[in-house]
Amino acid sequence: MSDANRETAPHGTTWPLLAAVDDPSILRAMDRARLPQLAAELRDFVLQSVSRTGGHLSSNLGTVELTIALHYVFDTPRDRLIWDVGHQSYPHKILTGRRERMATLRQLGGISGFPKRSESEHDAFGTAHSSTSISAALGMAVASRNKGENEGPNRRRHVAVIGDGAMSAGMAFEALNNAGVTPDIDLLVILNDNDMSISPPVGALNRYLARLLSGRFYSKARDLGRAVLQNVPPLFELAKRLEEHAKGMVVPGTLFEEFGFNYVGPIDGHDLDSLIPTLQNLRELRGPQFLHVVTRKGQGYKLAEADPVLYHGPGRFDPGQGIVKSTKPSRPTYTQVFSDWVCDMAEADERLVAITPAMREGSGLVEFEKRFPRRYFDVGIAEQHAVTFAAGIACEGLKPVVAIYSTFLQRGYDQLIHDVALQNLPVMFALDRAGLVGADGATHAGAYDFAYLRCVPNLVVYAPSDENECRQMLYSAFRHDGPAAVRYPRGAGAGAAVEKAFTEIPLGKAEVRRQGRRIAILAFGTMLAPALAAGEALDATVVNMRFVKPVDADLLGELAAAHEAFVTVEEHVVMGGAGSAVAEAMAARRLVLPLLQLGLPDRFIDHGEQAQLLRLEGLDGAGIERSVRERFGA
Amino acid sequence: MSDANRETAPHGTTWPLLAAVDDPSILRAMDRARLPQLAAELRDFVLQSVSRTGGHLSSNLGTVELTIALHYVFDTPRDRLIWDVGHQSYPHKILTGRRERMATLRQLGGISGFPKRSESEHDAFGTAHSSTSISAALGMAVASRNKGENEGPNRRRHVAVIGDGAMSAGMAFEALNNAGVTPDIDLLVILNDNDMSISPPVGALNRYLARLLSGRFYSKARDLGRAVLQNVPPLFELAKRLEEHAKGMVVPGTLFEEFGFNYVGPIDGHDLDSLIPTLQNLRELRGPQFLHVVTRKGQGYKLAEADPVLYHGPGRFDPGQGIVKSTKPSRPTYTQVFSDWVCDMAEADERLVAITPAMREGSGLVEFEKRFPRRYFDVGIAEQHAVTFAAGIACEGLKPVVAIYSTFLQRGYDQLIHDVALQNLPVMFALDRAGLVGADGATHAGAYDFAYLRCVPNLVVYAPSDENECRQMLYSAFRHDGPAAVRYPRGAGAGAAVEKAFTEIPLGKAEVRRQGRRIAILAFGTMLAPALAAGEALDATVVNMRFVKPVDADLLGELAAAHEAFVTVEEHVVMGGAGSAVAEAMAARRLVLPLLQLGLPDRFIDHGEQAQLLRLEGLDGAGIERSVRERFGA
Repeated sequence: MSDANRETAPHGTTWPLLAAVDDPSILRAMDRARLPQLAAELRDFVLQSVSRTGGHLSSNLGTVELTIALHYVFDTPRDRLIWDVGHQSYPHKILTGRRERMATLRQLGGISGFPKRSESEHDAFGTAHSSTSISAALGMAVASRNKGENEGPNRRRHVAVIGDGAMSAGMAFEALNNAGVTPDIDLLVILNDNDMSISPPVGALNRYLARLLSGRFYSKARDLGRAVLQNVPPLFELAKRLEEHAKGMVVPGTLFEEFGFNYVGPIDGHDLDSLIPTLQNLRELRGPQFLHVVTRKGQGYKLAEADPVLYHGPGRFDPGQGIVKSTKPSRPTYTQVFSDWVCDMAEADERLVAITPAMREGSGLVEFEKRFPRRYFDVGIAEQHAVTFAAGIACEGLKPVVAIYSTFLQRGYDQLIHDVALQNLPVMFALDRAGLVGADGATHAGAYDFAYLRCVPNLVVYAPSDENECRQMLYSAFRHDGPAAVRYPRGAGAGAAVEKAFTEIPLGKAEVRRQGRRIAILAFGTMLAPALAAGEALDATVVNMRFVKPVDADLLGELAAAHEAFVTVEEHVVMGGAGSAVAEAMAARRLVLPLLQLGLPDRFIDHGEQAQLLRLEGLDGAGIERSVRERFGA
Repeated sequence: MSDANRETAPHGTTWPLLAAVDDPSILRAMDRARLPQLAAELRDFVLQSVSRTGGHLSSNLGTVELTIALHYVFDTPRDRLIWDVGHQSYPHKILTGRRERMATLRQLGGISGFPKRSESEHDAFGTAHSSTSISAALGMAVASRNKGENEGPNRRRHVAVIGDGAMSAGMAFEALNNAGVTPDIDLLVILNDNDMSISPPVGALNRYLARLLSGRFYSKARDLGRAVLQNVPPLFELAKRLEEHAKGMVVPGTLFEEFGFNYVGPIDGHDLDSLIPTLQNLRELRGPQFLHVVTRKGQGYKLAEADPVLYHGPGRFDPGQGIVKSTKPSRPTYTQVFSDWVCDMAEADERLVAITPAMREGSGLVEFEKRFPRRYFDVGIAEQHAVTFAAGIACEGLKPVVAIYSTFLQRGYDQLIHDVALQNLPVMFALDRAGLVGADGATHAGAYDFAYLRCVPNLVVYAPSDENECRQMLYSAFRHDGPAAVRYPRGAGAGAAVEKAFTEIPLGKAEVRRQGRRIAILAFGTMLAPALAAGEALDATVVNMRFVKPVDADLLGELAAAHEAFVTVEEHVVMGGAGSAVAEAMAARRLVLPLLQLGLPDRFIDHGEQAQLLRLEGLDGAGIERSVRERFGA
């Protein structure tokens, strides 16, 4: 073993068993008695590796034994294994030939933090957004059935591993509802119940799962009762029939059995002696199978067990010392700007309520929940519901703010059109993580929102250029009497001073930030800073466009009269984006002049650091300058 | 009563009680003994009215008693009443002051076929797409709670009425999951169980509901058992405890109780003597209430009872005679073109499988299901699942065709990006009902798909100009090794002869259909026909663009050299649409010439006949000609 992990391991740990597992077939050939040691090594490797690259930790410490058991029992990659969300798939990556590449995790050119089909044949389905695994596994199971691959002892098996948080999304329910009545399929759904999504669990399903766990007591009580009753045959028969009625006709055991699954569990997901025989049994059964496994996030690393949220997705840290909170003041993120604004605004206007689909921490609502618990709504991983729920609230005169990542609003798109915009309801969307998002990569890119939002009537779309403008646009959008979205990126801005006082941004008005000649650079959102840098170098006019919808067509008319060409810059795909809005405004105003549209290309962009990626796509100051010179020889 | 309905009623029927109900308060003041007669009149009025305007029939005949009972018991419009989907809301419209306007139903300037906030204060929430009602009602209930309106005897109540088909969608589950744990709300969900969405019911939930109905037998058996056991005290106590364990700890009765609702039912939804006292009781209870009502679609009209699908959404007909199938041959619809193609293609390529989210009839899959039952998948009202399910199938080498309305693909948008396009899987979307859809109005308009599709990398978007091109594009998209969408409108085309033989359309190649001068009209999809008419009048060049993505930029370059201006025409909003794709291609190719973008405006367009609406928006031949002359003085 010569990987970077080992050489720099702070404790000099080595992993003798793990080092031999370059493929799960090697794992399957191992003496079963050695698997606990393999698990210990794998857990240590995960900890050492993540502590040096950053990434997801708690979830991966929780799936060590389950991953080993799955690859031990199933014939992967022939059998399909799908990890829902996929942020718990590091042990899987390590056991499937990517051990050494873990040092490159989530870095430019390195392996992804999520399963990815192009990365390994072991990644049967790319995941990252929640709750897709059962749908995908069912699709594969149906395909295997139709291709005749589900006959005989070597038939192909399909396994989806899904957390309790992800299980609460409507999409998972749709898949269960469909799978439970699909004939002749070979499908195993494993519920990895650790009672924790990123935010604390909410919703009735989680409450139900807790009851189900306590049902282990029920099993014992029933067995006891049966033993007693067995000595009184006629009455026992009646009682038994009663129980059969109760269980068989109306309520056959668990919610998952209602949906046509054979429910097994709950079992201890850290106990290989439970996991392996249970999986071996389930492997031989046909039809939809459901295994309820209980695991603990952070398992085996005391600090993560004690605070799985803190260790959910840490940066680099010393595993011996644990995460040390930085004492040096850092620039506030846009999320923090939102967090401050939403509390201040709630103070000033009691109509404000805030809604998050299970992203309290990520969206900056921790403080808001503390201060305004009755006005805070975590609806669970349920973007469709979140948007229409907000519409219902708006109907009654309150003012809902939906705090949501750009990429996740894609899940509530129809509701945004049909329930919010069509009824012209004053629902405000605080769209975080817009543009490129760094280490999470292509699955999480907020690169399509300008396009999918601006085609919708009644919507107003704000694009703040810095932190203070973000605050003032949140304020302005909140005051706007109709649907509005404010769209801001991941991470910190350049450090603009945020004014506490609220100032309304006039609707649809851009501002000229630099007066130059020949070329007018029209910048959207945080592309203003690099545009200004390019503008200096080129002596070009630079405009902070502020609005993607409505675009300031009057100003475009004035600029056209005084310039030879327009350049648009946005952190969004060019297709259908803000530059496209400028082109439409030009056509409508009969402005005929050369136009250069700069933005993200028409392809998916993998993980890497944000600044690095923007530079590679030519969206830093030098890149913009270069593009303009190439096009206009300026 | 002087409405058009009465004067032309074929049977001379009058409705003496109904005629007095201009508002539900009048209904509430009525002697309860007269309500059955009111129900009879209302049912007759619905039948007469729909037989003259066309519209939804079966669903509305099924909700007559429920509607009367709801308005009788609840203080509408102060209490909020939300009809899921809303195609069962005609009795509600008739009882809430719109009786006379029923003659204008779904016609230009007339009332909508769905609840609509701008139409009446009685329409608490606009609906049309399925499964939004619980989310909206919960939002309102939460708003009432936070505003202090849910205290005291006159507290505001919130009622959602949802069908069993709509209940199976993930969004409804998300709302139940959230509602069941929301404290201090006043919410009643009424499940209107008629065992029929538009397509036959599918999925585990429907099977469960059927078991629940048969559970009435269970109640009796249990009561019987208890009576017997009561004479044997100690064992009875044990049996009782067993049952409590079974019911209380693990499985407290029904799936809806698992979710925190108080479940009541099932009761007969056509029996006012059951409905009214039950609703009166539920009205006094706090917290999430769930009433299971059983109704029959088409109730009271024998022909509709016998064939509720045929009478689901009929055109005009004679109620005495029933629907008479037209014998005169009509031009095939685009749906029929798809229907023929998908069967022919399945015959030629055994990898083809077809998926519909509960729209077998509307999407043209009736014949396919008959001929290829194992390759046909109705996944229920579950667009999110449908798309990812297709992605899973595509991973295994089969070729899924997702038949879906443009407006409903909005529900699977994230899945289309994250699961299909990102993984570059060959999933094909047959997008029906694109553009304006006529009588269903703004909620169903397929007016945003070019924008939300073309911003997504890897996708190819075809826009056929006539029936034959539709068939050949379906063939070409199916053969394309990557995700593709073919987008076609509702209804019949101009009657182009459809060639049985398959011909591949070269990717990204447009075709010049008329060589003219000065102006080049670039037409997308079925806008080619009016564009050609305008082209004749203007002696303009006319191009059938064929592809929205990729746009034929080479041809644009050639055309730019020979023309003074471009005109784009599409049945889609201009913002982000196909004309915008042309503007981007022009910018990329440095083509600087005047551009006129014709398409749908940036506002929602209400119901009316398709041709009528297109003419009003200037998208017929004369309109295009006029716009071009206005702009270019041609």
